[in-house]
Amino acid sequence: MQKGKASIEFEESPVIISAACVAGKKEGEGPLGKCIDVVEQDDKFGMENWEQAESAMQKQAADLAMGKGNIRRKEVRYLFAGDLLGQLIATSFGTVDLEIPMFGLYGACSTMGEALSLAAITVCGGYADRTLAIASSHFATAEKQFRFPLAYGNQRPHSSTWTVTGCGAAVVGKAGSGAKNDPVIAGITPGRIVDLGVRDSMNMGAAMAPAAVHTIRQNFEDFGVNESYYDKIITGDLGEVGSKILKDMLKQEGHSLEGIHMDCGLEIYDNEAQDTHSGGSGCGCSAVTLCALILPKIRAGEWKRVLFLPTGALLSTVSFNEGRSIPGIAHGVVIEQGQGQK
Amino acid sequence: MQKGKASIEFEESPVIISAACVAGKKEGEGPLGKCIDVVEQDDKFGMENWEQAESAMQKQAADLAMGKGNIRRKEVRYLFAGDLLGQLIATSFGTVDLEIPMFGLYGACSTMGEALSLAAITVCGGYADRTLAIASSHFATAEKQFRFPLAYGNQRPHSSTWTVTGCGAAVVGKAGSGAKNDPVIAGITPGRIVDLGVRDSMNMGAAMAPAAVHTIRQNFEDFGVNESYYDKIITGDLGEVGSKILKDMLKQEGHSLEGIHMDCGLEIYDNEAQDTHSGGSGCGCSAVTLCALILPKIRAGEWKRVLFLPTGALLSTVSFNEGRSIPGIAHGVVIEQGQGQK
Repeated sequence: MQKGKASIEFEESPVIISAACVAGKKEGEGPLGKCIDVVEQDDKFGMENWEQAESAMQKQAADLAMGKGNIRRKEVRYLFAGDLLGQLIATSFGTVDLEIPMFGLYGACSTMGEALSLAAITVCGGYADRTLAIASSHFATAEKQFRFPLAYGNQRPHSSTWTVTGCGAAVVGKAGSGAKNDPVIAGITPGRIVDLGVRDSMNMGAAMAPAAVHTIRQNFEDFGVNESYYDKIITGDLGEVGSKILKDMLKQEGHSLEGIHMDCGLEIYDNEAQDTHSGGSGCGCSAVTLCALILPKIRAGEWKRVLFLPTGALLSTVSFNEGRSIPGIAHGVVIEQGQGQK
Repeated sequence: MQKGKASIEFEESPVIISAACVAGKKEGEGPLGKCIDVVEQDDKFGMENWEQAESAMQKQAADLAMGKGNIRRKEVRYLFAGDLLGQLIATSFGTVDLEIPMFGLYGACSTMGEALSLAAITVCGGYADRTLAIASSHFATAEKQFRFPLAYGNQRPHSSTWTVTGCGAAVVGKAGSGAKNDPVIAGITPGRIVDLGVRDSMNMGAAMAPAAVHTIRQNFEDFGVNESYYDKIITGDLGEVGSKILKDMLKQEGHSLEGIHMDCGLEIYDNEAQDTHSGGSGCGCSAVTLCALILPKIRAGEWKRVLFLPTGALLSTVSFNEGRSIPGIAHGVVIEQGQGQK
């Protein structure tokens, strides 16, 4: 049902039946390394180029997620998927072999939130029994797409983030189709685009923080709750710089996220040891952290209710070169421990 | 309800309450010129660059569509929108001022079909009373994105298509919220990616035709119908070359589309007089033709039931330069004359 101005509460909450993630060597060496299903040592995943590598990663994550839930490709009705590349080529080539009807999504690094939201809407409306949500990014394809050739050895300011080589995939099924303790999607707060005029593409955290604040505020208002309602509020890839802005902005509105806020970009790397500056970013950042850390913690009962909030910076090289600002967007997904389905 | 293997039938069909389109000078000079709401003589729409022009067009089409339905921005709960550009920058900057929660979509030129499908799912599931579906393209932004600088004067083979400068926007509301004769979305058949290995980016019709055939076949199978069920089956932008392939392929399966098939790419320009070779293309092609031609004909009762089937070619300059094929996708939307709501 519609909740407040912009949110949805699912009375029969869709279940995240199974999920899996695949990532690269650097992510494997990070704090979440042991929780990632497959860490591939070859960043090309045995393929000829980076884009094919990202596609291979998507396919592997999708098949793993379905495999974990004992679900065959034919049993998944729709696919909601996206990546960071122009015209979503990682997704197009990565999902073609799945032969599942596909909705291509672009929400920059917020894509996993967008995919889970649409998957939940579709399942809860009765239009599919099972759907698959996928989001990926690859350090090398993203650098090639957005910044400089790797061989150029560009200097990175401390506000910059490191694009995660990784893909997360989750099977979202209708209420009651999961196992005991499977996480469920209790509600969503789809975000709107917020543009406060930030222009520095090496400081995407600052560009996205206002959008995250907007979605959190909307979520609180629509559900009539505040930060105490959640065990964790987990943003996508604000990094150190953006996380500080987020907390400062919310503090001014009377919300303290101390002890409650986490950021996937700060969980996936050891910024100090791995030289990742402000943290991880990319669609894969929140998608991998969801599958490797957040869902297992909810399943284990350690967290009962989480606001998962992937954040996206809506820029391209064209918009950047034309001197445009970097609008942000953040899609909120309320994930809870299920009440023992089946 | 789920229908067959991949389709959805909406028992309480969402209504297309209002729709509007904005296009450029060339489109205004074409056969649909008089049916286009606003034909802008300046292809830059008064802006500094092509991308800003495309964004301005989106905003104008969105506001016009809402205005026609006497709907204020605040009354639209979600936006489903996309364009052809890398990272959807036309959409990000074009819709930011609407302040509506946004799902960014990329389905290449199939985007209007994808947007209407997700809008219908969301509305019919009860998760929104009103949504807005938008898709745009601009000749100059697309040429810059995918091909050569305009000033280079590249020769175009006869199989090539001309990207439409245009945007279509449609307000999709819950069943019963429209006026008498308003078109309704009776069902959808979301497409899957089909890749038969076509590699010629100057012949996108050939790349997309197999995907269109697949979706039409799936639609017939899922709804237990054949071509006689529809007054028209209207593909997005197969153009002359792709349309011939589509009809040939379906003929081999025993389906004759003679007198039933139309292609938006063949409606929007006078290919002979306007030197547009194989026809129009781009997200704007099917979106403008929907708003300028298809919806008015349905509203007038000239057509009772149409299968609207925007088609997309999933390529980027990166995938093309890496020698990859061009996968296609086509999203089917069954649009009927409503039974006199309200």
